Amino acid sequence: MLNLFQYNWQVRDDWFDWCTYVSEEELLRARVGGRGSILHNLFHIVDVEQAWIRGLKGKSEFHYDFNDYSSLKSTRELSMKCRPEVKDYVKNWSNEIGNLKLDEFSYGEVIRHVIAHEIHHIGQLSIWSRELGLKPISANLIGRGLI
Amino acid sequence: MLNLFQYNWQVRDDWFDWCTYVSEEELLRARVGGRGSILHNLFHIVDVEQAWIRGLKGKSEFHYDFNDYSSLKSTRELSMKCRPEVKDYVKNWSNEIGNLKLDEFSYGEVIRHVIAHEIHHIGQLSIWSRELGLKPISANLIGRGLI
Repeated sequence: MLNLFQYNWQVRDDWFDWCTYVSEEELLRARVGGRGSILHNLFHIVDVEQAWIRGLKGKSEFHYDFNDYSSLKSTRELSMKCRPEVKDYVKNWSNEIGNLKLDEFSYGEVIRHVIAHEIHHIGQLSIWSRELGLKPISANLIGRGLI
Repeated sequence: MLNLFQYNWQVRDDWFDWCTYVSEEELLRARVGGRGSILHNLFHIVDVEQAWIRGLKGKSEFHYDFNDYSSLKSTRELSMKCRPEVKDYVKNWSNEIGNLKLDEFSYGEVIRHVIAHEIHHIGQLSIWSRELGLKPISANLIGRGLI
């Protein structure tokens, strides 16, 4: 399971690098679908991941507000700030934990949801990238050393 | 691991249903990014999945040709035709199998690649759907009974 999170973090960080070659205006430009802009997609990925992991840890639900993170720098910093807690949680994952329940969901269901959620929103970025005439970040998982 | 494949198959089948409400012309219309059209994305997902599973089973590499499957009916039938072999393989998955090697890749790396590959291309469909003014299929994994 950790491998799939590591994949998401590598791809996410590659996209943050990609963003440095694009104007903040384009990153925030309203687009059709997803969360409505490139930066909002990235912010949303970060926010949803931390929110679910908090939930699995028994903490109260908490969401960040995109209005407070509407720059590449601040969204990227938020991603780095939230990662250690997620990583600490995921690296201790086991099939037994996956059978626990959070409301009507199993922990396993939630952790797989978080993984799929990020990949889905990254797929959306790849279309917007092509629409901008730019090469998107590779979505390949093979070849990243995530054995 | 099987749960993530089941998620992909549910979502894929939902998209095939979605396609029945869209003209074949729109399904084949050239679009920016992904594999270039809605139907080609779906065909590509099916083809890549079967190709990698064949590889993990020690079979020779084989790819279908989109020119032979450029209708909703034929792509959907191909998806259904390929699924049993994939399912039989994935349901017997174990961490030990994940450590085997296929060329320079581990089996685990390949199986995670196949999962992420489909979710990524489905994310692209969701943008094209919104660009068509249509509601995309939900990408939520939670709530699908995939516990």
